[in-house]
Amino acid sequence: MRFSLQDLSRMRIGILGGGQLGWMMILEGRRYPLTFYVVDNLSAPACRLADKCFNFDEYKDMVEIVDIVTYEFEHIPYEVLRYAEEKGKLIPRLDVVELKHERWRERMFFKKLGIPIPKFFITEDPLEVLKLVRNEFNYLAVVKQSKGGYDGKGQFFIKSRNDFEQIYDAIAKIRDVFIVEEYVDFDYEASIVLARNHNGEIQLYPPTYNMNVKGILVYNYGPLRNEIVTKKMFDIAVEIATKLNYVGVMAIEFFVKDGDVMVNEFAPRVHNTGHYTLDTANVSQFEQHIRAIIGVDLAEVEILSPGGMVNILGLSLNNIPIEVLKIGKIYWYGKNEVRRRRKMGHINIVGKTIEEVEEKIRHVTKLLYPEGVENYV
Amino acid sequence: MRFSLQDLSRMRIGILGGGQLGWMMILEGRRYPLTFYVVDNLSAPACRLADKCFNFDEYKDMVEIVDIVTYEFEHIPYEVLRYAEEKGKLIPRLDVVELKHERWRERMFFKKLGIPIPKFFITEDPLEVLKLVRNEFNYLAVVKQSKGGYDGKGQFFIKSRNDFEQIYDAIAKIRDVFIVEEYVDFDYEASIVLARNHNGEIQLYPPTYNMNVKGILVYNYGPLRNEIVTKKMFDIAVEIATKLNYVGVMAIEFFVKDGDVMVNEFAPRVHNTGHYTLDTANVSQFEQHIRAIIGVDLAEVEILSPGGMVNILGLSLNNIPIEVLKIGKIYWYGKNEVRRRRKMGHINIVGKTIEEVEEKIRHVTKLLYPEGVENYV
Repeated sequence: MRFSLQDLSRMRIGILGGGQLGWMMILEGRRYPLTFYVVDNLSAPACRLADKCFNFDEYKDMVEIVDIVTYEFEHIPYEVLRYAEEKGKLIPRLDVVELKHERWRERMFFKKLGIPIPKFFITEDPLEVLKLVRNEFNYLAVVKQSKGGYDGKGQFFIKSRNDFEQIYDAIAKIRDVFIVEEYVDFDYEASIVLARNHNGEIQLYPPTYNMNVKGILVYNYGPLRNEIVTKKMFDIAVEIATKLNYVGVMAIEFFVKDGDVMVNEFAPRVHNTGHYTLDTANVSQFEQHIRAIIGVDLAEVEILSPGGMVNILGLSLNNIPIEVLKIGKIYWYGKNEVRRRRKMGHINIVGKTIEEVEEKIRHVTKLLYPEGVENYV
Repeated sequence: MRFSLQDLSRMRIGILGGGQLGWMMILEGRRYPLTFYVVDNLSAPACRLADKCFNFDEYKDMVEIVDIVTYEFEHIPYEVLRYAEEKGKLIPRLDVVELKHERWRERMFFKKLGIPIPKFFITEDPLEVLKLVRNEFNYLAVVKQSKGGYDGKGQFFIKSRNDFEQIYDAIAKIRDVFIVEEYVDFDYEASIVLARNHNGEIQLYPPTYNMNVKGILVYNYGPLRNEIVTKKMFDIAVEIATKLNYVGVMAIEFFVKDGDVMVNEFAPRVHNTGHYTLDTANVSQFEQHIRAIIGVDLAEVEILSPGGMVNILGLSLNNIPIEVLKIGKIYWYGKNEVRRRRKMGHINIVGKTIEEVEEKIRHVTKLLYPEGVENYV
């Protein structure tokens, strides 16, 4: 049998979550003869582009009528994911996203694989957290809740005894499993985006340098200049994806210190640090994700130019000077409300050299956050 | 006063015509905080992405509520264009598109400017056409109707007395102004896309080689390798846009022979030969057009890679083998009916070298049209 695009035109894809990641997935997917449905509030960005949008209490209706269910965000209510999995439609699978629902599971998964990660302990007891921070890490540690963690939520950074005393009361009130881990004084953070399909075919995007402030990504750019470090990341990413028998796009975040890499975390979905692929690669992370889940061969990644992006965090349109349009490409998500730290849009950057990209990123960052980013997030 | 993106978010753009050009304009424009309305049949491609779509008999309602009216196609009913112009909203202006409503006006405009064009005569009399074809061009000529000409419509190619005798009866029945012009035995066809804004700022995309079959574009790619020819085209394009005090994107088609260029025609809109800019430039022709008409500075064009595109003409999805997705990027317009020669979609191509692009274009063309393109158009 000879496959044609007609085989795609019968496919209906359901996306759980209608934020910017779902929005860009449909923006890219609209070029294919595919149908896209979304589950989220009807005012969510992706609902403006979807063929139909369903409220969360109508999720079963959507799961029924689509062929594939994917998610743009791992913190979708568990029963929704489970329902889609039971119907045999969830990609990536439920056991993958479960690793993210409780962070300790992710840590244990990496530990078992022997993947380099920060030294860590797991405990449910706040008093045990106290002892570990003091005895094992001498007040230089990170305490993380297992549940609900993303964009720096549920994380406590401790650099001194004083820091810890100030936050201990907050920790003592939380009912969760804690990860107490070493504070890694990295040279830089980096991440890579990987795509894998049903045949085990893998495509990798080169690593980018990531700049996080208070646990939230402000900008990233690449490709990373160090080939040895890149190779280490590629090997780890391929191992993770292969061991999970993963289908779709995932991102893996790393700490890099003295040429060594440690995995910080992974995300079983398209990722903020892969937005640059929309404008510097022959195929974006969003298009690769769609290809992976519908079972089309992945496109071989070609990077056409160095590039990066700057997030627009908690700014409304009247705080964005029009000059940014001279430097980069705007993606405005059209969210209905501005909140501090909320991702409202981003500016993609391309340049002939990585130095030119860095210069443009500095310029855009200065235009968006004239008082310094740390005062806005 | 300091401009912010807030100033854009109040802007409503109305697009006359909802075909693939309007569809891609909105696909690109969706990243901006802008509102897009369309006038066309509600099943037109662009209506799937627009904030609202109006039937042609509701055009006045749309013109009333938008700030700017543009068109994706020059053969919009005259009264619609005139109404938008009278309301002071039409960009590009009515006198520009009038040059295209009657082809003889375009020819006269170029002649007056002294722009190199094929030798031509104008007549309303079919008998005069006969005399001109015989006496002036010795049966090697092109006869064009003034009205309704695009994609090879209303054009008669004459290469022999026999050719002419076969088509003369058809010509004799037409009530129109004819252009009788020399048949240019060009080395190749080429075109460039230009953008100009209200401040007279101009941005140019490099020329591409165009392959037309029976008057319809099959593929194009670039950038053109000849710098001297490129310079000649740039100079002509800048002169045309400046003399027209043009605002928006336009395309100019050329014949190239022995290093000399002649203008074939221009299009006061985004153009099929500019589709490649979606995937090889930092800013596409569609985004530049939007920037020009809303009064934002144009983005400085950077070409990231050689590239091109292949049109999907008159093929339904089941005639498109899935292998094309390995080679290029699909843009499927989602038209509700397949007709011979109808533009159903296109495949964008990128490559490290222009030779690689040529090779990929040959491959895609072979996959789409296994019996040879001339048997499909």
